[in-house]
Amino acid sequence: MRTKVVIVGAGPAGLLLGRLLDTHGIDNVILERRSPDYVLGRIRAGVLERGTVELLERSGVAERLHREGLVHNGVELSFDGHRQRLDFLALVGKTVTVYGQTEVTHDLMDARAASHATTVYEAENVTLHGFDSASPSVRYEKGGVGHEIACDFIAGCDGFHGASRASVPDKALSTFERVYPFGWLGVLVEKPPVSDELIYANHERGFALCSMRSPTRSRYYVQVSTDEHVEAWSDERFWDELRNRLDAETAGRLQTGASMEKSIAPLRSFVAEPMRFGSLFLAGDAAHIVPPTGAKGLNLAAHDVGLLADALIEFYEERSQAGIDAYSARALERVWNAERFSWWMTSILHRLPETDAFGRRIQKAELDNLRLSRGAASAFAESYTGAIAAS
Amino acid sequence: MRTKVVIVGAGPAGLLLGRLLDTHGIDNVILERRSPDYVLGRIRAGVLERGTVELLERSGVAERLHREGLVHNGVELSFDGHRQRLDFLALVGKTVTVYGQTEVTHDLMDARAASHATTVYEAENVTLHGFDSASPSVRYEKGGVGHEIACDFIAGCDGFHGASRASVPDKALSTFERVYPFGWLGVLVEKPPVSDELIYANHERGFALCSMRSPTRSRYYVQVSTDEHVEAWSDERFWDELRNRLDAETAGRLQTGASMEKSIAPLRSFVAEPMRFGSLFLAGDAAHIVPPTGAKGLNLAAHDVGLLADALIEFYEERSQAGIDAYSARALERVWNAERFSWWMTSILHRLPETDAFGRRIQKAELDNLRLSRGAASAFAESYTGAIAAS
Repeated sequence: MRTKVVIVGAGPAGLLLGRLLDTHGIDNVILERRSPDYVLGRIRAGVLERGTVELLERSGVAERLHREGLVHNGVELSFDGHRQRLDFLALVGKTVTVYGQTEVTHDLMDARAASHATTVYEAENVTLHGFDSASPSVRYEKGGVGHEIACDFIAGCDGFHGASRASVPDKALSTFERVYPFGWLGVLVEKPPVSDELIYANHERGFALCSMRSPTRSRYYVQVSTDEHVEAWSDERFWDELRNRLDAETAGRLQTGASMEKSIAPLRSFVAEPMRFGSLFLAGDAAHIVPPTGAKGLNLAAHDVGLLADALIEFYEERSQAGIDAYSARALERVWNAERFSWWMTSILHRLPETDAFGRRIQKAELDNLRLSRGAASAFAESYTGAIAAS
Repeated sequence: MRTKVVIVGAGPAGLLLGRLLDTHGIDNVILERRSPDYVLGRIRAGVLERGTVELLERSGVAERLHREGLVHNGVELSFDGHRQRLDFLALVGKTVTVYGQTEVTHDLMDARAASHATTVYEAENVTLHGFDSASPSVRYEKGGVGHEIACDFIAGCDGFHGASRASVPDKALSTFERVYPFGWLGVLVEKPPVSDELIYANHERGFALCSMRSPTRSRYYVQVSTDEHVEAWSDERFWDELRNRLDAETAGRLQTGASMEKSIAPLRSFVAEPMRFGSLFLAGDAAHIVPPTGAKGLNLAAHDVGLLADALIEFYEERSQAGIDAYSARALERVWNAERFSWWMTSILHRLPETDAFGRRIQKAELDNLRLSRGAASAFAESYTGAIAAS
């Protein structure tokens, strides 16, 4: 079997890349280790930058997003119960769209199914070969039978633990990492959100976030220590802790209910450089992880894939290597800017080991500065909405 | 003896306060532990915000400053030899004025001498009394003879190690502190500066700063570990280390010479709250210290003293307590904003213990963001020039 591009991973990054290539008639095959249901079961962020929405529009999968997605003009930040609002629209003329990653994946899956392009689910033991040679290929097993696909390029969209980055010799990779000594305990609940916009709260007891998936489905988080077990958190304990960390007015409006999902996610910053090795390209979580504060994970993956799709289209339509050669540096400029923002937002909103009395006043001063300095508020809005479109 | 305001400390803060009160005919006495020459011998920063210049104008001591001070429209930042410029004038319409703290002190001393207001130098064993009562006073000894001055108010402008903050009961003070595990080795040299503007450099080997006092006198710094001794640093070793940390073009232009002064200054962030205790007010270094990165020390002191002078003038001329009651909170808002900026600028430019590979990329990303984000550049310019005039 032969194709132009083998895409490893059928999460939103892989599916979006496949779709962007399809719209230009570039043959591609997607290999995914899991089942479609497993992929859809992943609960992730859902704040889309304008650039991400545009890529979904280009891919012809934005119809439901525009119908159901919630356009947010700003966010609220809270420090010890005092809320302040950042108005992105007024500051930088941009907005974000709240639409669950699961929904994005669903729309892309439907489009892929309708296109008759090949997607192999439950592809086991995926291995990458010859990406430093003129004849790359990807092997996998399905139902005990081995397969090999010869190709021009391989796109590694298989996440942090995937086979793609693991295939690159250690000496060819530089990695950068920060592990945070806490996690986010998240609860999904079938209740209207407490507020029309997201509320990021820094409280003496730790961070909390009021988020949502739809007008009737809410997502809430509280910072917990990494040694916490989800079993120790009854719904009641979760709601009590969340209320404690919010201002009284918000806490009073909170509609609670039985959790549909409850889990603890670790927080990590990670970057692998470069993002290209011969004919192998890494994109999204395969190359970099951000802590969820700042909601950059899916947006970075979409940005990578947008750059990569354009580079490949340029290669096939214009026989130009330029986009391919520039991919890693262009993607990494945006990646590091988002890593910086995600790290900073994590630092100013969480209770960290180094948050002594001085550190806590600095956190407050950072939040105050967003009120005192128009420049600082604009910088926040640029980063949050993705108005910084490096390269 | 009796006066309205006893000012403890004849550094720039105390002298400026005295001068501002003099211009409104408010009697005051300044007590200073050291001699005038000792005070003038202190080598300190020399970057004045517009607000500081305005206070000196109001005090009628800005004539030489306007003749000799160097107006700077921006600064340069360097990362591993790549320079970028921040244009304050273009970003926020503000500039800073480079004019040595010693010169400011000199001008204020001259004005004080001409005014025949009382300044007691070499006042020993200064003690503060009754500032929580209706009859405060300050005692001191001079030439072995004890003196007492009864007053309405005491202004503690006697620096971090002075008697004023030490007179406040521990339980009445909250303190916030960060000590940095490195210092600045500074050299003063009678040579023209290497550049018309300041250059702040982040290099693998550590921070460096190219600064100046005048068109013919330069001030250079390199970050050194706190256990370094100045004796270990010959002029030659200093210049070699400085050149190593600058870009090749700047290093090539550097004019070196015999050092006129060479010393190592520790870096510290410190805030004591509140800044008022009955009829005692703390101002400047007596209440807060910033690391010199960001050049905020003298400017914060001037801001405190400007607020305090206005509060006292309001009290004597309008019999209103409002300014006095608001002093601490208004001063602290500005203090914490400057603490934040000084801490941030220190963090992104120095080699810190936590500067692992990820931390170094974040430093680079912070500097890159000043190019990529107009908001971030404006926020920097607002903080550096003091355009953030809280309250």
